[in-house]
Amino acid sequence: MSKPLIFVTNDDGISSPGIIFLVKVAKQFGDVVVIAPDKPQSGMGHAITINSTLRLNKTNYHGVEMEYSCTGTPVDCVKMAVNKILDRRPDLVLSGINHGSNSSINVIYSGTMSAAIEGALEGSSAIGFSLCDYGIDADFSQAQKFIEKIISSLLKNKLSKGVCLNVNIPKLKADELKGIKVCRQAKANWVEEFEERLDPYSRPYYWLTGKFVNFEPESNDTDEWALSKGYISVVPTQCDLTAHKEIDTLTQNLK
Amino acid sequence: MSKPLIFVTNDDGISSPGIIFLVKVAKQFGDVVVIAPDKPQSGMGHAITINSTLRLNKTNYHGVEMEYSCTGTPVDCVKMAVNKILDRRPDLVLSGINHGSNSSINVIYSGTMSAAIEGALEGSSAIGFSLCDYGIDADFSQAQKFIEKIISSLLKNKLSKGVCLNVNIPKLKADELKGIKVCRQAKANWVEEFEERLDPYSRPYYWLTGKFVNFEPESNDTDEWALSKGYISVVPTQCDLTAHKEIDTLTQNLK
Repeated sequence: MSKPLIFVTNDDGISSPGIIFLVKVAKQFGDVVVIAPDKPQSGMGHAITINSTLRLNKTNYHGVEMEYSCTGTPVDCVKMAVNKILDRRPDLVLSGINHGSNSSINVIYSGTMSAAIEGALEGSSAIGFSLCDYGIDADFSQAQKFIEKIISSLLKNKLSKGVCLNVNIPKLKADELKGIKVCRQAKANWVEEFEERLDPYSRPYYWLTGKFVNFEPESNDTDEWALSKGYISVVPTQCDLTAHKEIDTLTQNLK
Repeated sequence: MSKPLIFVTNDDGISSPGIIFLVKVAKQFGDVVVIAPDKPQSGMGHAITINSTLRLNKTNYHGVEMEYSCTGTPVDCVKMAVNKILDRRPDLVLSGINHGSNSSINVIYSGTMSAAIEGALEGSSAIGFSLCDYGIDADFSQAQKFIEKIISSLLKNKLSKGVCLNVNIPKLKADELKGIKVCRQAKANWVEEFEERLDPYSRPYYWLTGKFVNFEPESNDTDEWALSKGYISVVPTQCDLTAHKEIDTLTQNLK
């Protein structure tokens, strides 16, 4: 039997420490191919490149046979891999490890998670990993045994079609990590403040800054709760955005 | 009682025919404020601008008191409106009318729908409108009475918190439109082909092209079905991506 084919991408760029660590872990489980953005693409959500062109350039950051930097978004990288570069569907799509949290509502802004969702849409098992630490010296290895456990489980037990995993890791030492909690996306929001500054020509410009607000801090089945208690949160994630419960009322209202 | 405050944005750019038509319709229902991208932002999904700055410039395309073009994405425009420009939460956020379909899986790639979802996240009623016609001569007025009906209904009957509407309009004459169908997002996918070309220096570059594949053409409760039968599709849409049904199995698998 051939080894699993594992495709790895991210949104922080192909040479960032998070993806370098993830590829190293992935190599234990199969043949690894990497296509990742040539520059940071944080906050790109599910963006794709349709009004412009894409390029691939061979790189050598990961010591695998096939690795390319791509001028596009994380989702472009997955589409490019599945539909152009690989000769078979990857058994597993891994995205990350993101430098910073993608829990709760962050999932919809996240390039990391959009790549995982796209992988699931294309019919592969898929996981997006994020470490809740923006620091340049973030230590991805503390959670290594849990990352291995999740990858290994997914290679054995496939999720339903179209479902991927959103895995967030709290910033803790290995011996402080309490384990894995499967949970749901917490209801939350960002309350933004736009910081206004003046450019050298006295014209205003704005920086987006924001404060994360958890609407349900008391619920004990959410990813935010799990992370706050020292667990690695695992949220099964899919892309049907239908608010099914609203269909009947709405049908009445629009009669 | 003061008039409803209606915020309008889109992803095709502030001067595109779709938003000009939508603002004209919206003016009948309240006080309109427009902030929309200064250039096309199709396929931007839920992207936000976090590694760069934003600018607003006063424009005069819509004949309303407050209108600005913004250098950011559709979601940036909503955040900017709610958190910087407006002194109260808009009663209604409208996005579009998009030039082209945002039904089914297109919802996750769509800047138009991401703006509507962001509006709902910020606590407003919100609707994304799309016309299934990419032509420069697309006629948005054919569906005017249905657009008015949906806006009017939403101003009267609020949706649940966090829910917005994804409205798609088939390319038909007014007397061919069969009415409104509330439905769910069809399961579908894009099968991409990357067209490879050579630049003048013989280096390859790629154009993303794709074919839409409906996985359930026989289901009669989806947006794709409604559109194919001549109905305007209305999908209540929210941003909890949790695959709730998977939580129990996954908990077992990751024990």
